[in-house]
Amino acid sequence: MNIIKEIHRDLAGEIAAMNKLTARRLTSKEELVNIIGQYLIESGGKRIRPLLTIITSKMFGYSGEGHIKLAAAVEFIHTATILHDDVVDGSKMRRFRPTANIVWGNQASILVGDYLFSQSFKLMLETNSVEALESLARAAAIISEGEVSQLVQLTNRNFINETEYEQIITAKTAELFSTACEVGGIIAGQPLENNLILKDFGLILGKIFQIIDDTLDYFGDTEQIGKNIGDDFLEGKVTLPLILLYEQLSPIDKTKLQELIKARKRNGKDLSRVVSLLVSFNINMQIKNKLLQLKSAAQRLINQINIQNEYKNYLIALIDFAIDRSY
Amino acid sequence: MNIIKEIHRDLAGEIAAMNKLTARRLTSKEELVNIIGQYLIESGGKRIRPLLTIITSKMFGYSGEGHIKLAAAVEFIHTATILHDDVVDGSKMRRFRPTANIVWGNQASILVGDYLFSQSFKLMLETNSVEALESLARAAAIISEGEVSQLVQLTNRNFINETEYEQIITAKTAELFSTACEVGGIIAGQPLENNLILKDFGLILGKIFQIIDDTLDYFGDTEQIGKNIGDDFLEGKVTLPLILLYEQLSPIDKTKLQELIKARKRNGKDLSRVVSLLVSFNINMQIKNKLLQLKSAAQRLINQINIQNEYKNYLIALIDFAIDRSY
Repeated sequence: MNIIKEIHRDLAGEIAAMNKLTARRLTSKEELVNIIGQYLIESGGKRIRPLLTIITSKMFGYSGEGHIKLAAAVEFIHTATILHDDVVDGSKMRRFRPTANIVWGNQASILVGDYLFSQSFKLMLETNSVEALESLARAAAIISEGEVSQLVQLTNRNFINETEYEQIITAKTAELFSTACEVGGIIAGQPLENNLILKDFGLILGKIFQIIDDTLDYFGDTEQIGKNIGDDFLEGKVTLPLILLYEQLSPIDKTKLQELIKARKRNGKDLSRVVSLLVSFNINMQIKNKLLQLKSAAQRLINQINIQNEYKNYLIALIDFAIDRSY
Repeated sequence: MNIIKEIHRDLAGEIAAMNKLTARRLTSKEELVNIIGQYLIESGGKRIRPLLTIITSKMFGYSGEGHIKLAAAVEFIHTATILHDDVVDGSKMRRFRPTANIVWGNQASILVGDYLFSQSFKLMLETNSVEALESLARAAAIISEGEVSQLVQLTNRNFINETEYEQIITAKTAELFSTACEVGGIIAGQPLENNLILKDFGLILGKIFQIIDDTLDYFGDTEQIGKNIGDDFLEGKVTLPLILLYEQLSPIDKTKLQELIKARKRNGKDLSRVVSLLVSFNINMQIKNKLLQLKSAAQRLINQINIQNEYKNYLIALIDFAIDRSY
């Protein structure tokens, strides 16, 4: 059985409690807020981020209700980020459906994102854990900073290098995975050393997810990823596949690729040509090797926590799930 | 001497400390964040909201540093709201300068707004006052909800009534004034009853400010308000002057005014006609009477706090300052 299904079955009670809580917090007198909020939250995502909070807290035997609140807060931050990102990127499709900005417009997406963001802070506050709040507030600041970095890259049409790429994906994706894991340990009253391990583990897991997302944007298919292929390239977003390719091109082809990104527009033909290059340079396999390195690092980290139970196994299985998604 | 100048002179030390703090928190590695943040914060606003926090805390003899952090947090929330509002409204000018969305684009405004918003939470956290955090988080949620209400009004071109108008201005403006006053009392360790008075006082002061803003949009001049006259009307935003006028029109003219708001566009000629009607019905004077009632209510409230010092006098003087601004 798919590990996500197994986790969803095993944690059905917690997930139901979280859904109930998010639904209850989406009862604004302004109907539009609830409609947009529910549209995103019910869109059938895998809920990896809030699941991480629930799993990490239960790994340490946590039995209170704070983990549900934190998981809902994590989901709200994620949803708010999606709303704003889709406006910033002008995205039209996500998870097989038109984005909220397409259905209700940019203005509503911006404001409902703000609403969800503040609701997430209200939820965090209810857990009375200043430490968890600090972790989440820090992540929220880094996420928006990362989005600005990406915007600057797009605006200037910079051909970023791998280090810059890693900074961007850490900020825009991995930080939320990281805090989602960390706050699970925090609410379970774990010592700093365990929480730091969880934090680092989440960071690697988040990087894996984003690298795969960025890879699927070239090698996936619409049916699999629920949005159009090649969006990143067409927007001029430089991600890992392009960066690895660039490093291996001849000086002349390097210049050509750079010019393609510098250009105001790229078309389907440009995309096909780049995909052919990615295939001929075996970039997919190079990325897989990179992912396997990250996987080992994540496994080593989580095994530093001296516990054996199904929750720890879920964390390990999620790494494989993420990597398998792309092959 | 102008009361704002007097307050700025008397609280010069605190204001300098706040400026230093906001500048220090605007040192993102992403230069664009700092540039946009500073552009707004240095735009020479009167800083009424953060001043309220400083004044209310000092009224009770507070001598720590938490009020500076809370004031900076209030200013960051305000700035984030401005960034997002100007995108949502498509505003082009604010405080005599082009808006950030005009200079750097909508995308940057959205993301830097998010960044400031999360920075504000980090600042609040540093005060270790869960009560203050709760007040500010609650206000932030209400502000975005109020903006959604306004958007719904604009999208549906509803001719809202006075009650609906009051709900919108309470949410979008008065709540932040209210929490700005309340957290001053909270950080100064005041009992609930005083904090509730501050909260209610701030709410009324905020309403006064917004009503005057909405009135100046018809009766002010560009030189005075730093943006174009008639923006609200041209956008189809229904505010107090129009609502009061509507109530007094004949059934035929009521329909005409409604149709004007329902129309896709309004022009300068429509605006002149509406302004003439506002003048002939003496709407300005009716609003002034309403403001004087609010002023009495605010004075009664603040005088329930049995303290006599310059800070309390500043609060009272700020009401007059606000009202005088419009005449």
